Amino acid sequence: MTHFADRLADAIRAKGNAVCAGLDPRWELLPAEIRARHGADTLEAAAAAVEEFCGRFLDVVAPLVPVVKPQAAFFEACGPAGMAALQRLLRQARDRKLVTILDGKRNDIASTAAAYADAAFGGVVIDRRVFPVWEADALTVNPYLGRDAVEPFLQSARKAGAGVFVLVRTSNAGAGQFQDLLVPAQDGGAPRPLYQHVGDAVAAWSRENLGRCGFGDVGAVVGVTYPAELAELRRTLPEVVFLVPGFGTQGGTAADVLPAFRGDGLGAVVNSSRGLMFPSRAGDEPWERSVERAAKETIAAIAGKS
Amino acid sequence: MTHFADRLADAIRAKGNAVCAGLDPRWELLPAEIRARHGADTLEAAAAAVEEFCGRFLDVVAPLVPVVKPQAAFFEACGPAGMAALQRLLRQARDRKLVTILDGKRNDIASTAAAYADAAFGGVVIDRRVFPVWEADALTVNPYLGRDAVEPFLQSARKAGAGVFVLVRTSNAGAGQFQDLLVPAQDGGAPRPLYQHVGDAVAAWSRENLGRCGFGDVGAVVGVTYPAELAELRRTLPEVVFLVPGFGTQGGTAADVLPAFRGDGLGAVVNSSRGLMFPSRAGDEPWERSVERAAKETIAAIAGKS
Repeated sequence: MTHFADRLADAIRAKGNAVCAGLDPRWELLPAEIRARHGADTLEAAAAAVEEFCGRFLDVVAPLVPVVKPQAAFFEACGPAGMAALQRLLRQARDRKLVTILDGKRNDIASTAAAYADAAFGGVVIDRRVFPVWEADALTVNPYLGRDAVEPFLQSARKAGAGVFVLVRTSNAGAGQFQDLLVPAQDGGAPRPLYQHVGDAVAAWSRENLGRCGFGDVGAVVGVTYPAELAELRRTLPEVVFLVPGFGTQGGTAADVLPAFRGDGLGAVVNSSRGLMFPSRAGDEPWERSVERAAKETIAAIAGKS
Repeated sequence: MTHFADRLADAIRAKGNAVCAGLDPRWELLPAEIRARHGADTLEAAAAAVEEFCGRFLDVVAPLVPVVKPQAAFFEACGPAGMAALQRLLRQARDRKLVTILDGKRNDIASTAAAYADAAFGGVVIDRRVFPVWEADALTVNPYLGRDAVEPFLQSARKAGAGVFVLVRTSNAGAGQFQDLLVPAQDGGAPRPLYQHVGDAVAAWSRENLGRCGFGDVGAVVGVTYPAELAELRRTLPEVVFLVPGFGTQGGTAADVLPAFRGDGLGAVVNSSRGLMFPSRAGDEPWERSVERAAKETIAAIAGKS
């Protein structure tokens, strides 16, 4: 079983870039022809439209990028039919050798966290048989509940050779309300913001299981919308892979994202969701063409700078 | 549209207690006859067993308690079929006039949070039509991402007359790793733990929309496993309804939970999950009888002390 960070590194090297295509299927932005064909008389019809769009999107981006990140919220918004679509799309992404990060930001206390984690990774055990559910390569996890609530995700991920990305510094404008609160250092040093304390915990978890590439299987979500914090975290968390949201639509630039990488181009995946799924279309060109161009532009922008 | 806190207060007064029955259907604890009848050859069969058990559990507890709290993780663990079961069980609970709290601990940045929230409460809007998804009366939400990530949940809840319970002090043993970090007060006062800063934010949100009963529609999750913190938070957050996990199996006692309530018995709901769903059975009594006895004992224990 290959270590998660090594699989991720292999995928990044094979594709020659570290772009993660976010799957954020917002109904109102789906191509008109897909919406019209499926209609929206039921949530099941909407889920079918979402699935067709995401499947065709994967067809375009799978040869180009190493990673996809489905956003659970948009599939849950279509109810059980949306979750069934998510399950099939994750399978399709795996079949295309994409590394899959399920963006669920899940969190709960011990045995409940284990239920989320088993579903995300290796499968749920029922009467000693294992039933796969989402089979993602990684899951995003919220750290607010602390160590014993995060560790079931790590245990389950490690059994499956999967990874966990813990929210450290998120990309939203209000992220600092709690994440930036200054906490005095326990050793009497200068106070540091909460997110750096969370980062320390992530680094410790990550060092428990390093891959050949030198990175651990516990990564950190660090928004590019705060480039100074991103650069600081890269220095203090050298073994932690960063999942970097906020590029493009949210305002992050290629120059901002550069510090997320180690010298050899590993150590981060840069997510773009709306910028790749719903780029501006030139005239009446097919939407797949727009997506392909947006993906290539994003890859070039990041590669040219890193 | 009745305010969430008033609906909750009405339900508590009608039943004469503030017990919340947690729906945590763990496969390995389901009654043997239900497991045997449905089998576990597929996740769909497991979901059917979970649904039958939870439905019969609701039959027993609906006349006794005012609130139920399905734990999303255990339904997600059965895949899309489990989510369909969750959807039907939430409907069944509403039909029985139970207040429903979906325990999802969801969190994400703005427009993504809105997708979770619309699904949880009033429904998802597709081509100007509203499609109900979970139709819960309340949802648990994780605050780590800050104000602009929590507010879409409040906006969506308020449109539907629903409520939000924000994680403040969770019941797990490791909760303090981040929640107890001491943060200096901005006004130069004594440092206070992070969870109290989160509590302040919850109080401010709650005061934006108070019901006739004097409580707001933004509650706080506060574990009874930390009774001193619980009592302190009751003093500092007088308008905030507490959802109190940790009673029973996790170690909280009736005396511990007393300080969660206002003098008139409102202001908190005390959750018991495993203690009600999977109580010890006296001899070969039917499991429904054990559940009924456990529910009545829990109600009496809390009422006798509050």
